Amino acid sequence: MADPWQECMDYAVALARKAGEIIRGALKEEISVMTKSSPVDLVTETDQKVENFIISLIKEKYPSHSFIGEESVAAGEGSILTANPTWIIDPIDGTTNFVHRFPFVAVSIGFVVNKEIEFGIVYSCVEDKMYTARKGKGAFCNGQKLKVSGQEDITKSLLVTELGSNRDPETIKIILSNMERLLSIPIHGIRAVGTAAVNMCLVATGGADAYYEMGIHCWDMAGAGIIITEAGGVLLDVSAVGVTSLFAQPSHVTRVLSVI
Amino acid sequence: MADPWQECMDYAVALARKAGEIIRGALKEEISVMTKSSPVDLVTETDQKVENFIISLIKEKYPSHSFIGEESVAAGEGSILTANPTWIIDPIDGTTNFVHRFPFVAVSIGFVVNKEIEFGIVYSCVEDKMYTARKGKGAFCNGQKLKVSGQEDITKSLLVTELGSNRDPETIKIILSNMERLLSIPIHGIRAVGTAAVNMCLVATGGADAYYEMGIHCWDMAGAGIIITEAGGVLLDVSAVGVTSLFAQPSHVTRVLSVI
Repeated sequence: MADPWQECMDYAVALARKAGEIIRGALKEEISVMTKSSPVDLVTETDQKVENFIISLIKEKYPSHSFIGEESVAAGEGSILTANPTWIIDPIDGTTNFVHRFPFVAVSIGFVVNKEIEFGIVYSCVEDKMYTARKGKGAFCNGQKLKVSGQEDITKSLLVTELGSNRDPETIKIILSNMERLLSIPIHGIRAVGTAAVNMCLVATGGADAYYEMGIHCWDMAGAGIIITEAGGVLLDVSAVGVTSLFAQPSHVTRVLSVI
Repeated sequence: MADPWQECMDYAVALARKAGEIIRGALKEEISVMTKSSPVDLVTETDQKVENFIISLIKEKYPSHSFIGEESVAAGEGSILTANPTWIIDPIDGTTNFVHRFPFVAVSIGFVVNKEIEFGIVYSCVEDKMYTARKGKGAFCNGQKLKVSGQEDITKSLLVTELGSNRDPETIKIILSNMERLLSIPIHGIRAVGTAAVNMCLVATGGADAYYEMGIHCWDMAGAGIIITEAGGVLLDVSAVGVTSLFAQPSHVTRVLSVI
């Protein structure tokens, strides 16, 4: 039987590439910046333009499908996931990077049917790296198959995370105290390139052993989540497992280290 | 009058490119890891091999020149800077990245005469980005001229730094408390790609507004320092200026933000 969603995936790759072109073009122009939830939670006209571009072209081809898009939700639309084929879109993951022209900016598209991810696309458009994964068929970057590191010893691990855009003093303290505990284990190091999607893809390549972040949204991980799992990694909900147990019990650490 | 050091610079670029090839080759093989000052201060045979490769080829061509190399110093050689033409070499800046195949690994070469930097080369070899700067002649990446952002408002800035390889609890606390103070200003964000040289080059491109790190060595910045200054930035010694005054007095902040 032919893959019912392969056509959608091919379309998504083409759209992500086109969106990347728009973003690369915008990086050459003046960027006017607005803020969302805090003075450092940034958004630009390009975020909205790219999301509209992607959604309108998908709607044209698949009028019955549903959408959850970062900027549509910010503009007041709901983000309720139904069984209907649903496209989850982050037009620019790494908007702060985009604003500064820090060279890691990704278009993220996840496609969900019956609440299961069917495929994910992360296009890191400044690097021109197209990460893709189709359920059951592996994860790839520019056509090259990806595999997580499989590292099980946290003292030999390199982690990726982000400091986030929440500037509430209590939140900052928690984020930094998590880093302190990790560094003290000790681990090899912590990196942060400024986009959840690219951080996750770096784990999928095996370049980092695990990524963790509290409070990310579905559009931050809908594209990259399946790239991780198809590369042999696992996704864990730290709020369900408990952050303390993650780092206190070796058996949990191992599982976290196999990926996100 | 012909530039007396241009020939050395051309040779350094060619050597850095060759060294990058060796590193990229080594990334495809098994990497055996040793430690230096702490369990997370890593070194590999490739660090030593690349340093020997660079130094032996320079010695052949310029037998009277002096050298300061990260691995030679680690092996017990001195690091005294004289007026003699001196090559300051970090064969792999970002050894932890190299070990993990995290894709930011740089060959760094600085060339100093009469204790003044004449040129600097940073070759980010996985990305294939060749950063170069010749005193008075500007800084370039793959031939494209670089310019720092010129951002003077710290609340609109993106910083790069590193968590380092020192796992002494007091040091970790200082590093994280500096981050806490910066985030609370607030600033747009903090990034860390795992190599001082590449972090500094990202500032030279304008992609980040400033880089700071305590306790880096001369070989970490000999190549990238002049790339920063030739891109219009400034270098400051935080131990001389005082960390507190850097972040407490707007007039100082501005100057730090103009670069490192």
